[in-house]
Amino acid sequence: VKIGFVGLGRMGTGIAWRLVGAGHELVVYNRTSEKAKPFADKGVKTAESAREAAQGADALITMLADDAAVEASVLGDGGALGALGARGVHVSMSTISPDLSRRLARAHREAKERYVAAPVVGRPQAAEEGELVLVVAGDPDAVGDMKVVFDAAGKETHVVGEEPEQANAVKLAVNLFLAVILEALGEAYALGEGYGIDDRLLLAILNGAVLKSPVIDGYGKLIADNRFEPAGFRLDLGAKDVRLAVEAAERKIVPMPIVSVLRDRFVAAQALGNSGQDWSIVGRVSTDRRVNAGT
Amino acid sequence: VKIGFVGLGRMGTGIAWRLVGAGHELVVYNRTSEKAKPFADKGVKTAESAREAAQGADALITMLADDAAVEASVLGDGGALGALGARGVHVSMSTISPDLSRRLARAHREAKERYVAAPVVGRPQAAEEGELVLVVAGDPDAVGDMKVVFDAAGKETHVVGEEPEQANAVKLAVNLFLAVILEALGEAYALGEGYGIDDRLLLAILNGAVLKSPVIDGYGKLIADNRFEPAGFRLDLGAKDVRLAVEAAERKIVPMPIVSVLRDRFVAAQALGNSGQDWSIVGRVSTDRRVNAGT
Amino acid sequence: VKIGFVGLGRMGTGIAWRLVGAGHELVVYNRTSEKAKPFADKGVKTAESAREAAQGADALITMLADDAAVEASVLGDGGALGALGARGVHVSMSTISPDLSRRLARAHREAKERYVAAPVVGRPQAAEEGELVLVVAGDPDAVGDMKVVFDAAGKETHVVGEEPEQANAVKLAVNLFLAVILEALGEAYALGEGYGIDDRLLLAILNGAVLKSPVIDGYGKLIADNRFEPAGFRLDLGAKDVRLAVEAAERKIVPMPIVSVLRDRFVAAQALGNSGQDWSIVGRVSTDRRVNAGT
Amino acid sequence: VKIGFVGLGRMGTGIAWRLVGAGHELVVYNRTSEKAKPFADKGVKTAESAREAAQGADALITMLADDAAVEASVLGDGGALGALGARGVHVSMSTISPDLSRRLARAHREAKERYVAAPVVGRPQAAEEGELVLVVAGDPDAVGDMKVVFDAAGKETHVVGEEPEQANAVKLAVNLFLAVILEALGEAYALGEGYGIDDRLLLAILNGAVLKSPVIDGYGKLIADNRFEPAGFRLDLGAKDVRLAVEAAERKIVPMPIVSVLRDRFVAAQALGNSGQDWSIVGRVSTDRRVNAGT
Repeated sequence: VKIGFVGLGRMGTGIAWRLVGAGHELVVYNRTSEKAKPFADKGVKTAESAREAAQGADALITMLADDAAVEASVLGDGGALGALGARGVHVSMSTISPDLSRRLARAHREAKERYVAAPVVGRPQAAEEGELVLVVAGDPDAVGDMKVVFDAAGKETHVVGEEPEQANAVKLAVNLFLAVILEALGEAYALGEGYGIDDRLLLAILNGAVLKSPVIDGYGKLIADNRFEPAGFRLDLGAKDVRLAVEAAERKIVPMPIVSVLRDRFVAAQALGNSGQDWSIVGRVSTDRRVNAGT
Repeated sequence: VKIGFVGLGRMGTGIAWRLVGAGHELVVYNRTSEKAKPFADKGVKTAESAREAAQGADALITMLADDAAVEASVLGDGGALGALGARGVHVSMSTISPDLSRRLARAHREAKERYVAAPVVGRPQAAEEGELVLVVAGDPDAVGDMKVVFDAAGKETHVVGEEPEQANAVKLAVNLFLAVILEALGEAYALGEGYGIDDRLLLAILNGAVLKSPVIDGYGKLIADNRFEPAGFRLDLGAKDVRLAVEAAERKIVPMPIVSVLRDRFVAAQALGNSGQDWSIVGRVSTDRRVNAGT
Repeated sequence: VKIGFVGLGRMGTGIAWRLVGAGHELVVYNRTSEKAKPFADKGVKTAESAREAAQGADALITMLADDAAVEASVLGDGGALGALGARGVHVSMSTISPDLSRRLARAHREAKERYVAAPVVGRPQAAEEGELVLVVAGDPDAVGDMKVVFDAAGKETHVVGEEPEQANAVKLAVNLFLAVILEALGEAYALGEGYGIDDRLLLAILNGAVLKSPVIDGYGKLIADNRFEPAGFRLDLGAKDVRLAVEAAERKIVPMPIVSVLRDRFVAAQALGNSGQDWSIVGRVSTDRRVNAGT
Repeated sequence: VKIGFVGLGRMGTGIAWRLVGAGHELVVYNRTSEKAKPFADKGVKTAESAREAAQGADALITMLADDAAVEASVLGDGGALGALGARGVHVSMSTISPDLSRRLARAHREAKERYVAAPVVGRPQAAEEGELVLVVAGDPDAVGDMKVVFDAAGKETHVVGEEPEQANAVKLAVNLFLAVILEALGEAYALGEGYGIDDRLLLAILNGAVLKSPVIDGYGKLIADNRFEPAGFRLDLGAKDVRLAVEAAERKIVPMPIVSVLRDRFVAAQALGNSGQDWSIVGRVSTDRRVNAGT
């Protein structure tokens, strides 16, 4: 499949290499061109713009940081909209708002293109190893046509509906759940510490004996050991996702009492200057006591 | 070991049978005597009071619903305090406040008795099957002497410190974490439902592909299927534990932003008349939208 | 002063009549034209678009419901931007986000026009009676030139800075404070009711003996008497303002723990179907108990 | 009236002098005796215990810091219970839990004594000046008999019911409302500061032009000026009242979403070491940003 690939951050780079490895023909583009250089060095074509990458392609994959970046690349002046080849599909893998996904779907429809949302679940390392989970929604035909791409990009694909925004909502639900767990770990640790309990010991009981989740184990250790660099997933991106989740819920008039408070904790964590740290740091600054102790 | 056993609710009954099965000599007592009948039928001795059960025993095990019940049974008029045999140990398995645990420790010390807190983690069925996890704290000698009892009562014992209240704090931290998960499941489901995503499908991705925790899977299914009866753990008991966690944190001046809101959600869930349902119902009433939809 | 006036809702209508009464020359416009009819009947000029109203005017006043309406009227296709006369000033009285205010300021600057934010505090009746308070920010010259307009529109003008967005931030701060008071009244009443205390009696002590605020007295009575219709200020507009306040704070990385929860309560109140009621109803649905009691 | 007066903190001292000034015959007692010395110097009788102060009196007034102090003075070993003269009335002016008030009512009834709750609203200076507001509940006869005492102690008396705990619930509702206002001021200021708005300017609009409450004005200035010493009302006492309010609500299964978060903010403010400052400091530490800025 001929694929235009836009966005070579850590996740995008990992996925793009998987696709190259699976024999797909890629044209890659990144706003800052040095990220594209390793691809050029290996003979992968590079483009000067998102539009150029999409030109005549069967698929345009976007894997960008936020709504603004996706909107600019596709809908903005000189964006990729309308450049795809016949029966081309825009596969949006970024974690964006359901609202933007809906607008993208409409714009592509009007441009006689197809659009599928396929946000991914997993850390950058999982991307490199082909261990990502894809959450997919969109027109069944387009989804079917892209199956070969999904299979190359990750190890598991869940089709959750025919409206693209549904996949984005699921992705936000997953991320808000993880975010709640980070904060809950922080508060449980804080209570334990108040009684002289070591974080690691508490984690051994909480997860080792009860929850038995490798993800909780991993985050629990990061927080216990104050290991927030290098960031697997940056706090400011996590904060963005929690905000998107709250806004997506509000659009459907769904209250979110816990997540609303969580959102504020992420703002507080950013206000303390941690935007570039791993998002698990929210579990460390979750309580003012620790904030105070740490300064 | 000669054991006085006080409290034959579902958890207590399961543990007591395990101890009987391991060959220990039990004298059981329950406030309402019909709960003791099955034991009497099998030739286990029964007592007319907690004090009588404790009389001359090597160990007094209490497994009661809350602080008030434990306080009445041990410290109240005609309570068990002072009745144990030489080097007797009160093993408190109930989920009580660290504050009461500290007071029990002091009272037993003054009565020349020993006291160990050993709250258990697990559902009633796990108790019957010997699958409980014990969280233990207290004087190392007393803990050592009770090892044979712990081994019979559960499959795993974590000694977390020498101050009994530490074990109670750990138990509360575990329960508050589980409670947060119930609410987080509810809010994630609510967001998903707003976009037409089935709860079970969301759970399959959230837990099946990401968290991989059997406990989250179990609770996620209870909430998805609205299966809140029979209660594995009653909402009112869960509400009590969340309240105890907040109070235990406050005693150490530890803020708990998320758990403070969660506590209020449990009150809200009780206000809706669900006290006798499984505590996972908090995930179903977590958002007013559903509350409204359901009435 | 020659004034184009866009937006004839209750607030806008009240202000427009004050300006007419003060002898200013108005051209009014409203999206649904029947709102303009009373003005036409009295000989006030009407326009077919916001742009036409602004054409050649000294001042363009916009008083619209939300960001989207203001953006469409000014920045959209056929919007008023660039239509003002020499040294014309756009006076934005709507309660909009500081973010939009900043974008409007920039757009007008680029179009060689001037822009002042002048959101108003007060209910529609206050508008009719000239009792509004104006919160103004912008270039001092432009503010000075508009003084005669401000004096006609309200009884009091507070100039809070030279960046227009500052006035919008102050307006949001005022509205979030009022919104907190509505919720706080609701929770205080709920506690009192739990102990058999009549809302009115509690209000007599709380406000009559302690706070002595006519505004709290007014809202306290609305809530006590369940008098939410007709709406002085609709719940959905109030919800919008609380949301804007949270977003405006997030832009400056300012945590808002209480207001974040409040925002969720407004969503919950809307989810119960109260969007068209007076926003004080949030004090009545603030607790699930009452929600339940009412259904 | 012959009055035993227990508790000579700032509030108690102010009230006691008012009663002396009104010609009542007092016997005063304070746990640390130096507080009683100024009374002895002026010829007022002093006692060595709460019981001695109550001995044969028509009224026993208690004005103590918290539940524990009142419980110890009245119900504890050597407490005042049962010492009053015929038809004697215990007038409990402390801010205590409705729960303790109910227990006191029962204990006095069993001891053939009468009990009235009469918590006061106002700052210490108001006590000295006879400007307190009394919130009273209890048996109408007892309330009637004490009218002369209430009239001497404050300027205004509100009888809210026949169950003493009702007065305590009203007092807690008043204090939680004030506490919410402190936090709301803090968050409104924080938003304003984010946009370069001076706190005092915001207060001038918020209260001066809108709310017009002398109490909000006073607290708003304390927070704006960071004037938290000397404490008119200590943070730790305020934190206690918010906690009592949450617990009183929980006893009646009343959710309190905002106040639950507020309670956590008070814990956070205490964790930062401000327990002895004026409780309005909660408005200054309400947001982590300021906490950070201040450290």
